[in-house]
Formats: sequence, structure tokens, C-alpha cells
Amino acid sequence: MALVGVDWGTSSLRGALMDNDGHVLEERSAPNGILAVPPGGFPDAFNDLFGDWMRAAGTRCLISGMAGSQQGWVEAPYCACPAGLADIAQKVIDIEPGRIAVVPGLSDEHDGVPGAKDAMRVPDVMRGEEVQIFGAVKRTGIGDGLFVLPGTHNKWVRVEAGRVLGFRTFMTGEFYALLARHSILARTVDATAPLDEGAFLQGVRIASNGEGLLHNAFGARTLSLFGRMDAGELASYLSGLLIGEELRSQPLEPGLEQPVVLIGAPALIERYELALHTIDVDPHTLGSEATWAGLHALSQTRPSA
Amino acid sequence: MALVGVDWGTSSLRGALMDNDGHVLEERSAPNGILAVPPGGFPDAFNDLFGDWMRAAGTRCLISGMAGSQQGWVEAPYCACPAGLADIAQKVIDIEPGRIAVVPGLSDEHDGVPGAKDAMRVPDVMRGEEVQIFGAVKRTGIGDGLFVLPGTHNKWVRVEAGRVLGFRTFMTGEFYALLARHSILARTVDATAPLDEGAFLQGVRIASNGEGLLHNAFGARTLSLFGRMDAGELASYLSGLLIGEELRSQPLEPGLEQPVVLIGAPALIERYELALHTIDVDPHTLGSEATWAGLHALSQTRPSA
Repeated sequence: MALVGVDWGTSSLRGALMDNDGHVLEERSAPNGILAVPPGGFPDAFNDLFGDWMRAAGTRCLISGMAGSQQGWVEAPYCACPAGLADIAQKVIDIEPGRIAVVPGLSDEHDGVPGAKDAMRVPDVMRGEEVQIFGAVKRTGIGDGLFVLPGTHNKWVRVEAGRVLGFRTFMTGEFYALLARHSILARTVDATAPLDEGAFLQGVRIASNGEGLLHNAFGARTLSLFGRMDAGELASYLSGLLIGEELRSQPLEPGLEQPVVLIGAPALIERYELALHTIDVDPHTLGSEATWAGLHALSQTRPSA
Repeated sequence: MALVGVDWGTSSLRGALMDNDGHVLEERSAPNGILAVPPGGFPDAFNDLFGDWMRAAGTRCLISGMAGSQQGWVEAPYCACPAGLADIAQKVIDIEPGRIAVVPGLSDEHDGVPGAKDAMRVPDVMRGEEVQIFGAVKRTGIGDGLFVLPGTHNKWVRVEAGRVLGFRTFMTGEFYALLARHSILARTVDATAPLDEGAFLQGVRIASNGEGLLHNAFGARTLSLFGRMDAGELASYLSGLLIGEELRSQPLEPGLEQPVVLIGAPALIERYELALHTIDVDPHTLGSEATWAGLHALSQTRPSA
């Protein structure tokens, strides 16, 4: 029995055809993110890209990501943390029973937990990353650790005994795009330049000077004004500042014993590895294969009672 | 002898006609910021707004702000901190000798200061705010304190014996505009809504939860997703988050003995007062009159040797 795994995000649609053992036979993608789908257009957008894969008898499809949001195909309400694969399996929502289903995201609400610390929290959510995390657990065999998923909205996820205990979202990727494209820094930052490791690491270092991001970001302007960095270096410096700021908001100690697992695109993984090495953390790394492994693992999981 | 004081910024041009004692006789403004002035167009833009004021015999004009930058009328190189009025007077650049001159900005370079702390600093600059600070010193009689100038790029300035020791810029105003207009939060934040004090103060409070701005900003999205705040409240909440983040980057202790002087537009002053009250700081406040008082004081100052 074949499985079609689909990751339907805000700005892109990706899918993989897998055999019963989870081996990927073919991959496809299109720029048809949920924001590009007209009202009522989800069945057509789905069939356009995956219709032929779904024709074989017994083929099932699991869809993760924003397709399960309020603006998506069918809403799959969040599954509350702590949550494992079986909890998610229980909250999968059928689109065509036995054939196409949507995977819920995770929420970290901390509503029920009393105490002063909790009064300072706001809820957090993810959609799509949960599947990558469970895929990474499967692939690496690491069931206890800190899982980091860089992207537009990065996730830092605490995993214990193969279950997600809780997580935090960081808007690092979006802040970088806003500053490099729309702020006063846009004039002096060349976001198309390749990574400059020295400038990047200087940004990571400066992020820990205790002056805060709102101040340090302005430094990317003055370094240009004083001719200390060129536009290409400043792009890497700004990226380092932001990733360094993200790092210093984590409960990470130098030489952390617990494994850290990085999941994402190679260009981002490279930056997070560089930044983590500055605090003597050597992460395990995975790419998009985590998504397909996660959806396959979910297809083999019995819902919790 | 009359004085024409001009504050020529990036996006606006403001001027005041003063008598010999610094009393403001008339004020004018135009949206002719330096970015709106064509190459070589500064004399015409100046004469269009202030030509009649300058006709009286002996009238002098001092211009502060971005008109003294590389992209301005005539470049007036930065005056290095620590700096007092006499140091600035020495670096004023004549456009028409004895008639029109440009005031330099201040730089805080920390180049010459050795030590690990300094290795974590980048240079900082201001143009225009220095005049407001010296005007506020004159008006309030406070020569030792922390001077705070909210705006697009906020300045926190340490003043001792009437001189600027050093300062920090915070991009708080620009971050707010970027997040409210261009980020994922733009969909759920109504930036036109009036200030909601409760939501604002909740943002200030959450900013100190130790999770960092990159995470806390995402909370403005989840609070909307979970229906806990409406778009108007979220605008105030986001503003509070940013101002709270700015505050926690300061060396401010609750019940600080040293005076804090707030200089700026009433709507921003109101927010900073609310935020400062949460840490038992009760600031002195001033508006645009600080600019004219500063330019007048500068016109009466003999340059340092």
C-alpha cells in the first residue's frame, strides 16, 4: 500500500510518493501554498499535483502544515502538548475517509500550569514541524533532546521519551527579511551576498553584549557609516546578530550533554551549526527527509485511546 | 539679533524664528525632509520656507539634524563623546559664514577605550537629538541624568555636568512599524487603534519574561489565534512588548535616584511614562521646545579652544 505524504505550507506545496516501508519513490513540489489557493480550490490544487499518484488502489495520503489551519483545506484543531505520535494520530481529520487526511498542529498553551513563571507565558503553536520532529526521532533514534527547526518562524522543541513536551517559536527568519528588505538597513545590507563566516560570527558574539537586539541592529548601520564592513559582510553580520539573539534566549549551556537535533534547509543549517559551535554544541542535522519519515511513521501509528 | 532655528530631518523640515532671548516668535514646517530634496536643491528648499525670516539684517540660522549628514546640505562631521555645547560649537560648519551654519551630530565610538566590554561595542551616532538634549538641560536645569528621546530610532543618553558622556540608539519605533505593517502580525494588529493601557502594560510585563523579543513578538499572533486580544489591543500589546524590551536593555534600577528626562511627541511620551512607572521611575517630560532652546543656547556658546 503506497503513502502520499504532503507538506502544504503557507507559500509552497510539496509531496512525496512512498512505498509501504517509507522509501521515497518520487518527489514533487509547486508554489501553490495555501495563500495561493482560491476559496474552494483545494481539491483541484491537490489533484493537479498528486492526482495520478492517488489512482492506485489503497493509496492513502496524509497532509501536514497550514492546510490544516483555519485558512486551509479542512481545519484540524491543535493537539495540546505534551504530545506523541499516538496523540496526533488520534486528532487526524479525514477529508476522504480512509483516503486523504489532515494532520493537526501542536499547541503549547500552559493554561493549566499554575505559578508565576506561567503567568509570563503566552500560548505557542506549530503546524507541520511536529511531523518533522517525529520523523527526526525515527531517523536518528534520538528520543530525548532539543530539536531546532530554523525557518521563517523557528521552533525550539523539547523532546522527552519521543514526545514533545513543549516548544517556543522565534521569528528570526522573518525579522531578518524585514530588516534586510524594509528597514533603514536595507540600504546598506546586500542580502544576496554569500555567507561571510567572520562577519556572521562577529554578529553572534555581539548579540551577547547585553545591549539587546533593538540596539545591536542599529550597529549594522553605524558599521557601514564608519566603513568597517561592506554590504555583503553586513548581511552576514545581521544574520549572526539575530541567530545569536535567538540562542541567548535558550536554556543552552556550553557543552550541553543533551543532544541537539537541527532540521532544515542546508543554508540555514550551516548558520545554526556555526552559531551552536561557539557554545560547544555539536548538533545532529537532518533535511527535508524528516517530513516524509514523520508522515510515514504517523501512517503506521495507532491513535491513543 | 534674530535667530532662525532649523531642524532638518530625514522626512521633515521644521523651523522657528526666535528673538535674541530665545523666545519663539513663529514656527513653520514642511514635509521637505532631506530625502525629498533633489541634488543641489537645498538652498531653494531653505529659501522657500525661511527666506523672508532671513531678510532682516543680522539674522543668523543654525540647522541641526540630517542636513549635516553625507546626504544633506553640507556635511558636518560627528563630534565625538564626551561632548558639551562648546565642543559642538567648535565643529559647527558654515554654509554662509556668519549667516547660515550646520550643527554636527555626536558619535559614541569607544575606540580608544580598552577592555573586554568595549570589544563588544559598535559605534553609535545621532544627528539632531544632541540639540534637544542641550535644550532640555537648559530648560529643566538638570545637568546630570538619563535623557530619553523616543522616535523611530530612540536615543538613551547619559548626561553628566551638562555634557553627553555616551548614548545608545534603539530601533524600537522602526521595529514597531515593520512588525505592524510588513510582518505576519500585520493581519492581526490594528495600528490605527487608540492606546489600550491594559494591553500595553501587559506587553511591557511580558517583555521581561526572559524569552526574548524574537519569541515574544510571535505571541501577538497566538493571542489573536486564541481569541485572547482583538486587533486594537494587540497593537498596544506589541508596542508594550517593544518598549519593555528597550527598557530591559537599560541600566535602570527600580526607584532610580538619577533624574530621567523624556523628550518627544506627546503620544510617545505617554507610552514611555507608563512603561517607566512600572519600574517606579517618574520622568521629567519635554516636547519640541527642547530643539529651539538647544539651538538658541548653541548660538550663545563660544566654541571650546
